[in-house]
Amino acid sequence: MNWDALPSRVHVQEVVTRDGLQIEPRFLPTPDKIALIDALSETGVSKIEVTSFVSPRAVPNLADAREVARAIRRRPGVTYVALVPNLRGAQEALDAGMDELNLVMSVSETHNLANMRMTPAQSLAGFRAITEAAKGSGTALNGSIATAFGCPFEGAQPEAKVLALIEDYLSLDLDSVTLADTTGMANPRQVASLVDAVRRRFPALPLTLHFHNTRGLGLANVLAALDAGADRFDASLGGLGGCPFAPGATGNISTEDLVHMLGEMGVTTGVDLPALLALARTLPALVGHDTPGQVAKAGRSGDLHPAPAHLAAS
Amino acid sequence: MNWDALPSRVHVQEVVTRDGLQIEPRFLPTPDKIALIDALSETGVSKIEVTSFVSPRAVPNLADAREVARAIRRRPGVTYVALVPNLRGAQEALDAGMDELNLVMSVSETHNLANMRMTPAQSLAGFRAITEAAKGSGTALNGSIATAFGCPFEGAQPEAKVLALIEDYLSLDLDSVTLADTTGMANPRQVASLVDAVRRRFPALPLTLHFHNTRGLGLANVLAALDAGADRFDASLGGLGGCPFAPGATGNISTEDLVHMLGEMGVTTGVDLPALLALARTLPALVGHDTPGQVAKAGRSGDLHPAPAHLAAS
Repeated sequence: MNWDALPSRVHVQEVVTRDGLQIEPRFLPTPDKIALIDALSETGVSKIEVTSFVSPRAVPNLADAREVARAIRRRPGVTYVALVPNLRGAQEALDAGMDELNLVMSVSETHNLANMRMTPAQSLAGFRAITEAAKGSGTALNGSIATAFGCPFEGAQPEAKVLALIEDYLSLDLDSVTLADTTGMANPRQVASLVDAVRRRFPALPLTLHFHNTRGLGLANVLAALDAGADRFDASLGGLGGCPFAPGATGNISTEDLVHMLGEMGVTTGVDLPALLALARTLPALVGHDTPGQVAKAGRSGDLHPAPAHLAAS
Repeated sequence: MNWDALPSRVHVQEVVTRDGLQIEPRFLPTPDKIALIDALSETGVSKIEVTSFVSPRAVPNLADAREVARAIRRRPGVTYVALVPNLRGAQEALDAGMDELNLVMSVSETHNLANMRMTPAQSLAGFRAITEAAKGSGTALNGSIATAFGCPFEGAQPEAKVLALIEDYLSLDLDSVTLADTTGMANPRQVASLVDAVRRRFPALPLTLHFHNTRGLGLANVLAALDAGADRFDASLGGLGGCPFAPGATGNISTEDLVHMLGEMGVTTGVDLPALLALARTLPALVGHDTPGQVAKAGRSGDLHPAPAHLAAS
C-alpha cells in the first residue's frame, strides 16, 4: 500500500433507503423513510440513493418512490439519486426532479436476464431511450455495472467485458460509472486489478465502488480500491441490504463502519460520524431486527472506558 | 499494495478453543472441546492454541485445561500451544507436554493491571521465571503483546513502547512475538506502520498478528499486515471471541473467512476450506448461538447457483 498516496477526500454515498430496504421483510412506512433520508442529508454524505422507480409488484418495499422523492428536504450540496430500471421509471424520476438517475445492468448476461429480464442489447437500448428523455433536463446519469466482480450464476467476469461495457456507457454519454459487487464475490486483489484497469483506460471517469460485505470482505475491498485510487463508495446505514442467495449473510458495507475506518486512517469524508452512529442505532427499531454494522455496537476505537475501580483504589 | 510481493505462504493459527471460548456464556463440555480440536488438527492449520492454564475461578470455561491438553490427538506438523498467565500455569502446561507456551502481557500498564493484576515489571519477572522453568524442555515460548494497537483505558500506544517491550521479550530469549489487537481498535494504516517498524527492527523475528473484528476491520487489517510482510495470523473458528466491553460485537477474525479471503487472493495457507466450513457450521449448535463468521452462511465466492428456471425455459 502506498499510504501517503491515499485519496485526501473520499465521497460516501448512502444507499440504505434503496438497496438497504428493498429486500427487507417488511415495508418501512413512508414517513419513516422520509425522516431517515432527511436525517442522512444532515450527516455530510455526498449522495443519497433515495429510492427506485420500479414496479411496486417487483419491489413492494419501494412502492412509495414518488411520494418519498417529492417529500424529502433537499439539502444543497447533496446529490439525490433514484435508481431507474426502465424509461417509465426514468420519466417518473425526472418528473420528481431527481438530481441523478442510476441506470443498472449486469455485465453477466445470465444475471441480466434473471434480474432485469432483458438481454444486454435490450438493456442498452433502454438506456439510450432514457438518455434521450433526460436530455436538456440537467439531470446526471450514472451507469451501474452489476456483477462486475462476479456473477452468482456465471462466476468471475473478465475485466475486458467490464471495460467494454463502460465503453458502451460512455458512447451513450453517461456521466459516471459504478462497479457493483452485487452478491459480495469480490476479493481485494481482484478489486485492485479492476479499479486500476478502469482508471488507466478512463482516467477522467468518476468511478464509484459498491461493495457488499456478504463474505466479510467489504472493508478489505474498500482498502484495496482506495489504494488503487478510488474515492467514491456506496454504503448502507447499519449494513442493511442482504442477498437473497445467502440467508443470514450481511448486506452492503455499513456506512458508519466505512466512515469510521476512513477516519481512523486519517482520510477525510466530511461525514459526522457521531450523527451517523446515532442514526444507525435507530435502525433496529425501524426494521425490526438487529443490523450488521459493528461500530454502532462496539463504539469507535477512540471511545475509551474508565479503568476498573479496583485500580483507582490501589 | 504490492500484490506481487505478498507472502507466498501464510500460517493460520487457530485460537477458538482458548480465545474463542473463554468468555462464552456457557461451558463447552470437555469431550466437545477435544473433538473440536481433533477435527481442527486435520484441517491444515499450523498452530492450535488449545487452552489456557489459568485459574478456574478466573476463566471457568477453561477449567478442563489439563484434561483437554492430555486427551487431544497430536498431529505431526501442528504446533499445540497453551496460554499461561504465570509460573504455576506454565508448569502445568510443561507437564502436559505442550509444544509452545504463550506468555501474555499488555503494553498498556493500565490494561495489564486490570487484566493480569500485575505491573509490567511483575509480568516480566514472571516471564523470566517461566523461561527458567522451561529451559531444556524443548518447549517454544511465544510472547504476546496485548493492546498493541490500543488500550480501551489508555487509548493508542506509542510504537516505541511496543518495540521496547519486544526488546524485553528477546532479552528473555522468547522465540517469537504476537501483536494482539485485544479489543479490536486497530486500523489498517496503523497496522501497516507497526508491522513495518517491527520487521525493520527485528527482521528475523517470527511475528504473529492477532486481530479482532470488533469494529469490522479484521480482514482489512490482515490485508494491511500482509502487505507489510506479515505471514502468521491468529483466527477463531466462526469468529468466536467477543469483547466484554462491546456486547453484540463480533469476536476474533473468523478462521474460515480469513482462509477464504487468502485463497481468493491466491495466497496459499495449506488449510482445507471445505473442511473448515463444515466444522464452522457445527459451532452454533455447540455454543448455543449464531456465530459471526460470514462465509459459513454465504458460501464461498466460487459457489455458483443455478440460473432461475424461467431462463432455462426461454
